[in-house]
Amino acid sequence: MKKVVLAYSGGLDTTYCLLYLSKIKHMEVHAVTVDTGGFSKEEIKDIEKRAMELGAASYECVDAVDQYYESCIRYLVFGNILKNNTYPLSVSAERISQAMSIAAYAKKISADAVAHGSTGAGNDQVRFDMIFQILLPGAEIITPIRDLQLSREAEIEFLKSHGVEMNFEKAKYSINKGIWGTSVGGKETLTSGQPLPDAAFPTPVSKEQPEDLTLHFEKGELKGVNEEKFEKPAEAIRRLSAIAAPFGIGRDIHVGDTIIGIKGRVGFEAAAPVLIIKAHHTLEKHVLTKWQLYWKDQLAMWYGNWLHEGQLLDPTMRNIEKFLEDTQQNVTGKVFLTLHPHRFTVNGIESAHDLMSARFGSYGEMNKGWTAEDVKGFTKIFGNQTAIYYNVNEEN
Amino acid sequence: MKKVVLAYSGGLDTTYCLLYLSKIKHMEVHAVTVDTGGFSKEEIKDIEKRAMELGAASYECVDAVDQYYESCIRYLVFGNILKNNTYPLSVSAERISQAMSIAAYAKKISADAVAHGSTGAGNDQVRFDMIFQILLPGAEIITPIRDLQLSREAEIEFLKSHGVEMNFEKAKYSINKGIWGTSVGGKETLTSGQPLPDAAFPTPVSKEQPEDLTLHFEKGELKGVNEEKFEKPAEAIRRLSAIAAPFGIGRDIHVGDTIIGIKGRVGFEAAAPVLIIKAHHTLEKHVLTKWQLYWKDQLAMWYGNWLHEGQLLDPTMRNIEKFLEDTQQNVTGKVFLTLHPHRFTVNGIESAHDLMSARFGSYGEMNKGWTAEDVKGFTKIFGNQTAIYYNVNEEN
Amino acid sequence: MKKVVLAYSGGLDTTYCLLYLSKIKHMEVHAVTVDTGGFSKEEIKDIEKRAMELGAASYECVDAVDQYYESCIRYLVFGNILKNNTYPLSVSAERISQAMSIAAYAKKISADAVAHGSTGAGNDQVRFDMIFQILLPGAEIITPIRDLQLSREAEIEFLKSHGVEMNFEKAKYSINKGIWGTSVGGKETLTSGQPLPDAAFPTPVSKEQPEDLTLHFEKGELKGVNEEKFEKPAEAIRRLSAIAAPFGIGRDIHVGDTIIGIKGRVGFEAAAPVLIIKAHHTLEKHVLTKWQLYWKDQLAMWYGNWLHEGQLLDPTMRNIEKFLEDTQQNVTGKVFLTLHPHRFTVNGIESAHDLMSARFGSYGEMNKGWTAEDVKGFTKIFGNQTAIYYNVNEEN
Amino acid sequence: MKKVVLAYSGGLDTTYCLLYLSKIKHMEVHAVTVDTGGFSKEEIKDIEKRAMELGAASYECVDAVDQYYESCIRYLVFGNILKNNTYPLSVSAERISQAMSIAAYAKKISADAVAHGSTGAGNDQVRFDMIFQILLPGAEIITPIRDLQLSREAEIEFLKSHGVEMNFEKAKYSINKGIWGTSVGGKETLTSGQPLPDAAFPTPVSKEQPEDLTLHFEKGELKGVNEEKFEKPAEAIRRLSAIAAPFGIGRDIHVGDTIIGIKGRVGFEAAAPVLIIKAHHTLEKHVLTKWQLYWKDQLAMWYGNWLHEGQLLDPTMRNIEKFLEDTQQNVTGKVFLTLHPHRFTVNGIESAHDLMSARFGSYGEMNKGWTAEDVKGFTKIFGNQTAIYYNVNEEN
Repeated sequence: MKKVVLAYSGGLDTTYCLLYLSKIKHMEVHAVTVDTGGFSKEEIKDIEKRAMELGAASYECVDAVDQYYESCIRYLVFGNILKNNTYPLSVSAERISQAMSIAAYAKKISADAVAHGSTGAGNDQVRFDMIFQILLPGAEIITPIRDLQLSREAEIEFLKSHGVEMNFEKAKYSINKGIWGTSVGGKETLTSGQPLPDAAFPTPVSKEQPEDLTLHFEKGELKGVNEEKFEKPAEAIRRLSAIAAPFGIGRDIHVGDTIIGIKGRVGFEAAAPVLIIKAHHTLEKHVLTKWQLYWKDQLAMWYGNWLHEGQLLDPTMRNIEKFLEDTQQNVTGKVFLTLHPHRFTVNGIESAHDLMSARFGSYGEMNKGWTAEDVKGFTKIFGNQTAIYYNVNEEN
Repeated sequence: MKKVVLAYSGGLDTTYCLLYLSKIKHMEVHAVTVDTGGFSKEEIKDIEKRAMELGAASYECVDAVDQYYESCIRYLVFGNILKNNTYPLSVSAERISQAMSIAAYAKKISADAVAHGSTGAGNDQVRFDMIFQILLPGAEIITPIRDLQLSREAEIEFLKSHGVEMNFEKAKYSINKGIWGTSVGGKETLTSGQPLPDAAFPTPVSKEQPEDLTLHFEKGELKGVNEEKFEKPAEAIRRLSAIAAPFGIGRDIHVGDTIIGIKGRVGFEAAAPVLIIKAHHTLEKHVLTKWQLYWKDQLAMWYGNWLHEGQLLDPTMRNIEKFLEDTQQNVTGKVFLTLHPHRFTVNGIESAHDLMSARFGSYGEMNKGWTAEDVKGFTKIFGNQTAIYYNVNEEN
Repeated sequence: MKKVVLAYSGGLDTTYCLLYLSKIKHMEVHAVTVDTGGFSKEEIKDIEKRAMELGAASYECVDAVDQYYESCIRYLVFGNILKNNTYPLSVSAERISQAMSIAAYAKKISADAVAHGSTGAGNDQVRFDMIFQILLPGAEIITPIRDLQLSREAEIEFLKSHGVEMNFEKAKYSINKGIWGTSVGGKETLTSGQPLPDAAFPTPVSKEQPEDLTLHFEKGELKGVNEEKFEKPAEAIRRLSAIAAPFGIGRDIHVGDTIIGIKGRVGFEAAAPVLIIKAHHTLEKHVLTKWQLYWKDQLAMWYGNWLHEGQLLDPTMRNIEKFLEDTQQNVTGKVFLTLHPHRFTVNGIESAHDLMSARFGSYGEMNKGWTAEDVKGFTKIFGNQTAIYYNVNEEN
Repeated sequence: MKKVVLAYSGGLDTTYCLLYLSKIKHMEVHAVTVDTGGFSKEEIKDIEKRAMELGAASYECVDAVDQYYESCIRYLVFGNILKNNTYPLSVSAERISQAMSIAAYAKKISADAVAHGSTGAGNDQVRFDMIFQILLPGAEIITPIRDLQLSREAEIEFLKSHGVEMNFEKAKYSINKGIWGTSVGGKETLTSGQPLPDAAFPTPVSKEQPEDLTLHFEKGELKGVNEEKFEKPAEAIRRLSAIAAPFGIGRDIHVGDTIIGIKGRVGFEAAAPVLIIKAHHTLEKHVLTKWQLYWKDQLAMWYGNWLHEGQLLDPTMRNIEKFLEDTQQNVTGKVFLTLHPHRFTVNGIESAHDLMSARFGSYGEMNKGWTAEDVKGFTKIFGNQTAIYYNVNEEN
């Protein structure tokens, strides 16, 4: 009997897969939910119950939040990564993290195959397949929804015919929730011209009065929110989400290139990721040198794109992570912000590593360390080559 | 008698320079104000009157808005350039444009020297000197404030002793206004931890009701605002400023590296630049390919930094401009936005060049152009090298 | 009757295709040889004769040398492109150029399909398919060798059974010749550790005495070889090949990443390309500024890789070409070289745009343009940020 | 009495400095020679003797070869750094290493000042000043040759008048020797058009018969030459130099941008550096992934330029070193070469990490890991965006 690990979220597609693989294909299906911060305990309990009813040989919920943080989020913060200057890569990073957890589980129980519920139309199929073919070289990859090209209606009919009862009503928007943000797709995001209505975002905007906020970073990682300190950055992120999400902060629509070459548009709300990245970047502007900032940006842009395309396991990514981590040794300090409905301001920072220290002279005021003559000499030499270029080529 | 062209803005420093050079140094001083969009006609009239009273041999106000747009702003838009992901380089670009106008004027009247009122403590001295030494190789560069290391008080005393009457009261904030934004420096910006109070920004926030806004781009340039079309993008920018500035949009504090190596902080309000760049970038995400977006970012980041450092005349900048310009041929279409107090949303776009056309399949839905098998094959090959890498190095 | 254009070189694979498509599949086969500089007139005559005998409906030899030069080689020179710092991309560029010619021909005669003889194991299939699917969106792509997975022996048997007589003996090395170089694959190149023997290279090393050589560039293009001037750079390249190839110059083995993710190794001899690129680069070092040289390298490396992967039609490539072309306006002058058996030296250059002009001071000798004090001031400011960094972080 | 550490090489300039500072300026001069591999024991003995005669308070020869290797050469190899694709940065890296040794010595003996013999016309003054002002923030930097603008004749006259006897004859070429190469400047290098004659290079070409050579790398570092293993890569470099220099390998002229903006030209012979870099790069092509190779090149180019400009202490350099080091974990294996007079060939490699392993299919032959259909699917998706772009913009 073929032993297969199914990435199982409890939604329509993976419910179909579980039933189909166990009842029709007679496989030994081990259903695994990888929790990257998007499920409550109650939800997991329900998901487990349903899985066993559908015929799973076993069910497991893997708490992958820490692995997700350590392998992805950490570097997304170090690199201030917002894809196309907007999107914190919420789903992209999460899928890859989930695929790695599934692969590890399949290896642990010596499964013959892994299965996922992706369709043939999106990015996720590439991310799952990619990670599986690298980490599980011999294993079969089973994708019923993609291979059978099933419509939503066909799936429902099949499930009903097997006596499965669940909420078959189609949600107006497809929502994907995790610790690094919630994506919102459907209707307007299928067009180029329309914004998502406020009601499409799952978190209601319930806070109206401005609140001050202090974020504490240690070597680039979020370790404190206001007066609270956290051992694990993932806990700090959760705390920050609770504070900031009710302001409706960090909502936007991302437009970008899918792995398969078409353009896609997706809404998201990601209060904590956006606040963390903007605060972290501001702190970096005070403590890093000009070229550290420059090269971080150049590398992080590529890193984010390559991660988005499912290529986290390329060893180049490890090399860049080493670079990014090494830049963070002085990224320690506090960042002061104010939260307002739908927006926030970054007010300033405080750090022992602040290069803007008044000891070296303030911008626009005279300094003790160098003279006007020094700057004149500097400028003469700094512009020397272009001056020669103009002289030789008579362009002046 | 030495013939000198003085970059003259009518402020304390350049007023001192004019009097000092004409009365003490007995030079023939030709005062020139370069208008990059920051002066009203009345202000110019007053400035001219004062200049002649102070002993100028001649006065000229050069309208440099178009030259400024063509030589700088155009490419700042093409490159979506926000220094350190925040600042539209308002002052940096303006100073260089002004220096180029002064140099052209000095050449026209065959001046022996050029003078500017910069101190020895900021970026502007470098920008002025740099442009002058390249474009006016033989000319002397005279900088009384820098060379005499004059205090504000000493300048005032000198002017009073020569009977000059003007408002000698020190403004709480130093304001620099131009078509590409207004900078605000002083008090809080000299610290790392404090934000500017609302009152520090010159434009009062007077609009409270949301307004929809449509921006029209043609080959990357702003050619329309709502129903109005403009021949000259600079006119469109002025129109947009009038609409958006009263919302308090585009205010922030920039933290960055000065040319002389220290960190500096400066506030700004730049409603039109920020709206234009965000709208333009969104349009680009729909009409450019993945790698066009990637390389535009990589090049524009360096271009912005090098411009900031006064190096606009390096021929590398021309080469990058050719690249940027060539990317803009399809950047034509409308961008829809909504303005709110202190914030705005980009709602969507419409373009004949939109690559998100539903003809090629929507993201997340099945396509006619390729099959699930194609994507499986793609993924296998796309992940091939990393799979081999893991196999060879047994890291899985 | 299906009308198909076959990319036909007269080798075993395309001979099979022609016979198979016309005789077995009963298609109207239009055989086209795209000459990128690798055929003599006699060879073309023989190829044509054989094509008609095999059942071609028509035969055409397209002289694509100029198109090849204008669309590829020109930019390979501007960018000094040697893949992995070694290989002038001889075959990569040629295949793409050939595919574009075939596509244009198919469009001209309104063919229903295009066919090529690539196997399923190399880069060429990707390059042909890629260009065809972009330039001929509706057309069918037919690849008998790849689809039938034919062995060499099976092909020969089929041809013999249809009475075809040609030299069926397998060459020891697979040779591909074009104006931008000749590739040599087989035996040793299938290993990682062995070099190609001298005899594997088609051109015998017949010159033993050193010869001086002068190359003339105009705006980056080769326009003269010694005393001879050429209107068309392609003619100059042919002339240079005739002079330099008998020295055995420009032979090496390229190791690199194939498009499909495996590593490959291929020998080549490319006297003219290597000489031109090294001479051109030396001239550029004299006439371009520091940052022009830097950005040319960064962009050209990516351009070469993307071209290698068949992506010449990505509009990013046009943008980079505009950049590269704009850098060439002063790349005019002579380069002096000496050719020896198996090696050469670049001796120096002469150019009206040489920035090394003694007018501005020679390296290591005192200058009139600036003083020792200027350099001291420069250094103080140039090292300012790192000095502050060390002071703040007490790392000294 | 002012305590000064003088960087003393025993040449004319530093001899002048030592006498001048001790006898005329009455300082306590501590003469230090930093040996970066360019001195024999006899030379050092002579230099010491002369130093004491000239009035040095103390003399020390610091053996800096290991520090030089660990802080610079190691990363020049990891990055395959040849400035402008030619020059192994022999002198640039050496000067910085020497300056760091002088600074450490000055700190150890609590000197008030440091002195060097650089003129005001070259790169070295910037490198020395830069390192000193960062590592010795309070210390005075004394540069008699630069400040007094002394001619060679004036220096000689002064020394003779104080009874100093040494060889005052001007060498035809200025030679600088260290473990990472020997620079040769003068006469022809002051022109753009003339090559150095063979006789200008210090090592005679004495070997005529080809020799095979095997280099052993461990994690990117040279650890073996033919049968000999070395604990310290610096020892392996010396051994390789002894073998290869008599072939006249690694001679060339570098043309490049000086720190002060003019172009400079310098000859060099650097057999070991050039062989090591070319061998190392070839090994990397077999064991690194495509994007590792790409990013190494992009970062290393900038790293080399910034090192050349004396900026080794910028923390960005540490970040890049971490990246480079992390890429080297599999760069272990043998590289096979053959040395000929004036040239060499890289014949192949052998490594347990070779990604070209035949297990995954050879280039140009069918593979077990994927099918022709996979590649067709890959190509369809890989070219998808450009196909859509052409369709939308009707450019085909």
